[in-house]
Amino acid sequence: MKFGINLFPTVGPAEKSAGQHFEESLRLAELADTLGFHHVKTVEHYFHEYGGYSPDPVTFLAAVAARTRRVRLITGAVLPAFTHPLKLAGKLAMLDNISQGRLDVGFGRAFLPEEFTAFEVSMDESRARFDEGVEACRRLWAEEDVVWEGRFHRFGPLTLLPRTWQRPHPRILVATAKTPASAEAAGRAGYGVMLVPSINPREQVQKTLALYRDAASAAGFKPTEEDVHMSYSCYIAEDAQAARQKGKLASDRANQALASAVSAWRETRSTDYPGYEKIVERAGKGDFDRAVAERKALVGTPAEVRAAIDDLRVWFGECTVSLQVISGAMPFEESARTMRLFAEQVLPYYQTND
Amino acid sequence: MKFGINLFPTVGPAEKSAGQHFEESLRLAELADTLGFHHVKTVEHYFHEYGGYSPDPVTFLAAVAARTRRVRLITGAVLPAFTHPLKLAGKLAMLDNISQGRLDVGFGRAFLPEEFTAFEVSMDESRARFDEGVEACRRLWAEEDVVWEGRFHRFGPLTLLPRTWQRPHPRILVATAKTPASAEAAGRAGYGVMLVPSINPREQVQKTLALYRDAASAAGFKPTEEDVHMSYSCYIAEDAQAARQKGKLASDRANQALASAVSAWRETRSTDYPGYEKIVERAGKGDFDRAVAERKALVGTPAEVRAAIDDLRVWFGECTVSLQVISGAMPFEESARTMRLFAEQVLPYYQTND
Repeated sequence: MKFGINLFPTVGPAEKSAGQHFEESLRLAELADTLGFHHVKTVEHYFHEYGGYSPDPVTFLAAVAARTRRVRLITGAVLPAFTHPLKLAGKLAMLDNISQGRLDVGFGRAFLPEEFTAFEVSMDESRARFDEGVEACRRLWAEEDVVWEGRFHRFGPLTLLPRTWQRPHPRILVATAKTPASAEAAGRAGYGVMLVPSINPREQVQKTLALYRDAASAAGFKPTEEDVHMSYSCYIAEDAQAARQKGKLASDRANQALASAVSAWRETRSTDYPGYEKIVERAGKGDFDRAVAERKALVGTPAEVRAAIDDLRVWFGECTVSLQVISGAMPFEESARTMRLFAEQVLPYYQTND
Repeated sequence: MKFGINLFPTVGPAEKSAGQHFEESLRLAELADTLGFHHVKTVEHYFHEYGGYSPDPVTFLAAVAARTRRVRLITGAVLPAFTHPLKLAGKLAMLDNISQGRLDVGFGRAFLPEEFTAFEVSMDESRARFDEGVEACRRLWAEEDVVWEGRFHRFGPLTLLPRTWQRPHPRILVATAKTPASAEAAGRAGYGVMLVPSINPREQVQKTLALYRDAASAAGFKPTEEDVHMSYSCYIAEDAQAARQKGKLASDRANQALASAVSAWRETRSTDYPGYEKIVERAGKGDFDRAVAERKALVGTPAEVRAAIDDLRVWFGECTVSLQVISGAMPFEESARTMRLFAEQVLPYYQTND
């Protein structure tokens, strides 16, 4: 098991200025580096408290790269639908070099209607744009004199600069929230997956993982624990009741941010997102106690969180867990305490010597 | 007078790996911070040794922001033609916050045909895309609930996140290589200018500056020295002859990189770039000794460079000078020495107490 932090902001100017948010986030990233966490991850979103402070994860991760020495940097995720592949591949290659090979690239399709509207991209082209964007980046990293004749972009022959530090390219991870076939395709392609266990039944996640691992194996790949990512809200305190109370507060705030961001789904339908209107209907209406009991949020004392992770390991096998430690405009000291308690009392139980 | 460094890379994998380039550039940026330079600047270019290691200046400057405390960060320039304004304004706003208000934003039109071809953007739309991109960014930074109905983009009402640290927005600089009318328009809008004195006669630069300052003044603006930027190749050594020899070597290599990058102009004509085919014909054929004598390159002993800068101040008035200290795949130690000698023996002569 590997454990990192996901600095997914759910905060707006009313709660915390962007200056304060970035200063605190950089300090938490340094803490992750020194406390022995595996990675720092962040998201790409726009306009809303739900991730909107992070319209370009590469910009933030470049600052993290310059402040840290060993922690890995993970986009969770970048959205090819909104950035030209020459631009996206180029800046990720810069980050791979600035960090001296510490980058893993997670790609996502995006799912918020207002983002597609703002960029004038049809949601019904989401999957096609995603597939084209990921494959164009992969070829720009791995090959020279690339000629690309896609549905959305045509270029070449040209050779991307800078060349990536990691050859042929950084690890690629594909975000798959709801569609098992996406995980299967990722396995066939030799990519990793980023799953969203908090919005799916445990059995569904297990089934998706089995499909992924079988597809990868059949294609001759051997996915490691670093190829299977899951994000969980995390709040730890020495006192069980305090952890529950404060964790619930953060969770409620984050849920409100999500509910606001997905509200446009009330008027949206897309062939590329079948059934999403129902999924997002439930967003922001989480039952906190049930989520904690079902191991969909890692909240409690260090011992309680260890017990939860032991269950996750039994259910899903060895994987990489990203702890969301700043949800709901959390005060800096609470995020730092969660990280410290985790590093002192949870991490050692899962330490491997690799 | 203010003096910063321009880390415009003219280097490819054959001379220096990208990993080495970025490690060295970050060390030079830290040196600029501690030696008292005003800024660190870098460029946006693609595919060629001429700037190609820097397809996204914001990514590099975010790393610089995290490693420095006082130096300003300047895009010289970002190219709105190749990035959606929501993306460009968003990541620049992140950088403004990560650096706690140390960002100045230089915008450029781009001029390399292969870049336009790769992004499938017509060169004949260059000026229109530039004007729309700059104004869209400005409004996204300064205003809320922005509605944009442009020729190339339509969005809103929406409010950009994060909000910029500097209010209403970071200083805006407009790159004007050859067109006096562009400088005049920048003055009217209250923006600064980035001029390219190395490719223009001195009298032309003076005329352009007079137009700029008059237009700004007539519109009620009072441009400072930080609103007028010029970049110069710079190579300093204690020994005059050594400076000339090594400076010429770097200049020749940089000229070769430029000549290669502009070769597509042989088959290119564009209404938005009248006469460019002739300008670029001369690119890469610089007469080094003449350039040094005409103060178009700052090369020599510290005393010689001081004399050159005294001339520039007489000709152009108080302005901000960016020293290109890594031209032609220069060895790190030579760049660092140029910076140290400049900081010790040139900078103090122009120090102000602001």
